[in-house]
Order: sequence, then C-alpha cells, then structure tokens
Amino acid sequence: MTENTVEPTSLTLLGLGAMGAAFARAWLAAGHSLTVWNRTASRAEPLAADGAAVAATAAGAVAANRLVVVCLLDDDSVEEALAGADLTGRDLVNLTTSTPGQARARAEWARGRGARFLDGGIMAVPPMVGVPGSGAYCFYSGSRDLFDDHRGVLAVPAGARYVGEDAGFAALHDVALLSAMYGMFAGISHAFALIREEDIAPKDLASLIAEWLNAMTGSVHLTAEQLQSGDYTKGVVSNLAMQVAGKTTLLRTAEEQGVSPELLTPFFALMERRLAGGHGAEDTTGVIDLLACTPA
Amino acid sequence: MTENTVEPTSLTLLGLGAMGAAFARAWLAAGHSLTVWNRTASRAEPLAADGAAVAATAAGAVAANRLVVVCLLDDDSVEEALAGADLTGRDLVNLTTSTPGQARARAEWARGRGARFLDGGIMAVPPMVGVPGSGAYCFYSGSRDLFDDHRGVLAVPAGARYVGEDAGFAALHDVALLSAMYGMFAGISHAFALIREEDIAPKDLASLIAEWLNAMTGSVHLTAEQLQSGDYTKGVVSNLAMQVAGKTTLLRTAEEQGVSPELLTPFFALMERRLAGGHGAEDTTGVIDLLACTPA
Repeated sequence: MTENTVEPTSLTLLGLGAMGAAFARAWLAAGHSLTVWNRTASRAEPLAADGAAVAATAAGAVAANRLVVVCLLDDDSVEEALAGADLTGRDLVNLTTSTPGQARARAEWARGRGARFLDGGIMAVPPMVGVPGSGAYCFYSGSRDLFDDHRGVLAVPAGARYVGEDAGFAALHDVALLSAMYGMFAGISHAFALIREEDIAPKDLASLIAEWLNAMTGSVHLTAEQLQSGDYTKGVVSNLAMQVAGKTTLLRTAEEQGVSPELLTPFFALMERRLAGGHGAEDTTGVIDLLACTPA
Repeated sequence: MTENTVEPTSLTLLGLGAMGAAFARAWLAAGHSLTVWNRTASRAEPLAADGAAVAATAAGAVAANRLVVVCLLDDDSVEEALAGADLTGRDLVNLTTSTPGQARARAEWARGRGARFLDGGIMAVPPMVGVPGSGAYCFYSGSRDLFDDHRGVLAVPAGARYVGEDAGFAALHDVALLSAMYGMFAGISHAFALIREEDIAPKDLASLIAEWLNAMTGSVHLTAEQLQSGDYTKGVVSNLAMQVAGKTTLLRTAEEQGVSPELLTPFFALMERRLAGGHGAEDTTGVIDLLACTPA
C-alpha cells in the first residue's frame, strides 16, 4: 500500500505517540517534508534525526503547512492542542481515536474555524504502519475534496479508504470492525477455555479455529442480504429454532468442562427473545434488531 | 473430500433427519450398500428409491452390517433406538450431537455391549454434505482401529479428521468451534446494529467485516503460543491496559448509536478483572484463565 510514486509533499503531524511516530517514520522514509510537534518534546528527537522539522508549538506546526494531520490521545487533546492555532485555509486530518459523535462535532468546529476536515480511523497497530502488504489501512470520512487532494500522501503509511461525507463514518466503521473483532475474541477465548484442562495442544485447536472462522465469516454476506431485503428467512440453512435447540449442547459442555458461559449467554438470550417473538424460521439476524431497539 | 475411489462398502445408518438423509444420499451416490432405519418410516422412502435397503427395526438394521452409523436427535434417542439391538462385534459410529461427557459415557456403554465405538462431530450443515469442496468435515474420536478400518467410507459424505482416543474429543472440538463462531456472530451482530439507522449499505460493511475478521483470526496462533508458554506478554502489540482504555470509545459509540452493549460488556468486564489483577502488559489471553477458573 505504500505509494512511493506520490509527489513529495510538505505536511505537519501533531502527536508522536506510538501510532503518530509510526506515521511520521513512514512519511519521512517516503521522502516527504514533515513538521512535527509533540507535547513531550523529547519524543520528536529521533524524528528530527531522520529529517523532520520540529516545531516548538502546535500553532507553529500548523502554520508550517496546509495539510495538518493530528494523532493525539483523545478528542479533548485535539481541542487543547489546537486552541491557539490559526486553522484558516488548513486541511485538517484527524486520526485521533474518536466516537462518530465526537468526529461530527470536531468537523463542525473545524469548519467554523475555516478549515476543511477529514476524520480517520486507523485499522492497524503501529508495527503494521508503513509496511507494504501488512494490510494496514485507514477509514476516512468528511471532506471529499480534501481526501482527493491529499489521497496520495495519506496512503503512504497505510491504505486510504474513503467512506463518506459524514465525518462520523470513519469512526463508525472503525468501531464496528473492532466490535466485531472483540466478539470473535470472546468466542475464541471460550473455545480455548473449554480445552484448557484437556490433553489437546492449543496450537492444534488454533489452526482449526482459524480455518473454521474464516469459513464462517462468509455468512456475513447473507446477513447483509437479509438486512437489506428485510426477509430474515432468506437463504437460511439452520434456522433460529434449530439453533436455540442446539445451544443446549454448547452450554452443557461448558458446564462439564468447568467453563463459565458468560461470554456466550447474552447472544443466546437474544436468540431466545427473538424466537419467543415467533421468528423461529429466521436466521439469527433478528438479534441485530433487538440490539438496536434497546432503549438507551 | 468425496473419495469416490473407496471400495464399495456395506453399512447401516440409523436416523434420517436432514443431516442423516444427506449422509445417506452421499453414500448411495458413491455406490455403497446402505441399510437405513428411521423412527418415522416414511422418511426412508426417497432413499429406498435410490437403492437403500430399509429395515423395519433398528435392531434389524444393526444386524445387517458391521459398520453402524447413528445420527439421531440426541443421546437419549441413541439409547432408546439401540435398546433392543445386539451390538456384539459391531463398529458403532455416533454422529448424534452430544456433549463430551455424553460421548464418553456412550463409548463405555458401547464397549460394555461388545462394540467398538467412534464418536463424531459434524462441522457442516446438510447442504454441504457430499459436496466436494464444500469444506464439510467431521471430527472423530474414540477407537483408532475403527477409524482406520472405515476411514475411506466415513470420508465420503464429509472429510474425516481423527482427534484422539478420548471419545469426548470429537464433541469437544465441535463445541469449541461452534462456541467461537457464536462469539463471532455476536460481534458481527453488534457491528451491524451500529449502522442500522445510518446511510451505510449492509453489504458494504459486510465485505469490510469479512476482510477484517479474516485478517484478525491470525491472532489465534499467538494466543495458542502464549497459552503453551504461559507467558501472555509474548508478542503483544496492543496490551491489556491499552485495550481496556480503548474500549471506552466502543461503548460510547454504542450509546451514541442507540445500541445495547450487552454482547460486548462481558468480555470487557473480564479484561478489566484481569487488568485489576496486575496484568496490564499482557495480551487478552488471561481472560481464558478467568473463564476456566469460574466455580461451577
């Protein structure tokens, strides 16, 4: 994904935590002119040795370039760091972890200060950044023009995927994927717990889990079709009634193996609620509606 | 996986539910001699038309062949169906859904009645059975000799994977993988719920989820290494302290989007418990120990 063919660009980066520093190194390695700022100045030293200009203040770093990338601890840090900066005519790209609501509010705030705004959600850990073939990428949402103008340089540290004018969409996509991942981690944890006291090598189970889950992720496309059509019985091979019946074996096995079922029971409870609503012929897709309909 | 090269074999199948019938069709299509029995006799009719011999009683079906495959509703049905059968010298393969404990007890029971015993766990839905390239397979555990003697014919409807002499291991592997899958389904459900009211096409999110989860399943190998070494800090890129901090954004986003966090909170709670135990530098692997240590 590293695009070494992009024209040398001059840009600013605020924030040199593990992720910010990884982005900085990727831009420097690709020959871009980088001005950096970090609240704790010492973190800029290794980057200065690699050719980065170090600004004494965030306002000074913002003044140095039109394209300003921000990768700070949280949304409050963004407000604080940019409080004294003149954002007029700036292209602000915010890679700071945010909720969709924070990103939308920050977009309004930036526009009110004369800047174009793009929010980013990073789908990678720092060691993947700037490594071709690592699969690292960022979701971007907000100003399409900003994205189009700077796409090349943005894509240097990690692939760049634009997901909409709504500035909250990058964060929303980011959080959706991380949430799906934590569900998967929960399931995997339960699986390993089941064999913890047995004469089964974790590495052998690991290979089987990876193969099985990779095969099962394909079901997400059917779920999407069901959501789009509103017909949750479409293409069902194992319906809700059968799955609710089948969970008994899973729960009894957990009990036999001395494993708490707490990571599985919430999903089963929602399956049962949906079944009780008369939807036994459906897939488990109705669980999604139950989640989204819960009063805040 | 269908092995059409296996010598024609004569075998018995008890149970013609959706799964049993799919197995029967696969064996008949591959030229094997099949005797079937089902409590509701009418379900045998289409198979008789395809060349199966239909036994009037389960005992009669068992008498017809040395290799007897059982695919019934549950473990109680197995006991009931085989109550009047002479199992002496029989090779009993039990594909009925069971817990590891049920499979172990059934193995003892079968040995006490003079039969060799193999338990199976089917990793497929009926439409995948007998379809080359579908990925369908069964875990088998129990008598290694029985498995070796009948491996060819067992592998006709679905791939055959032997996982140990312990008759409970097939069911344990089966349940472990299904449990991991339900965790993944829970995470995917949460992800779709987050975008339910947004202008984002479910199919677009589906592709991103599938790609992301396929990339993340690789982490299961690191988890296995950590479990085997006992060092849960090995190879960590995003440690427990960072992940616990990061979950705030996931929970706030759920709240903003009006989505109940109930499918994610149990895993986060375990992460926090492990962190509170002073394990902030570890991966999330310690959650597995918390699950396995919970009093029944």
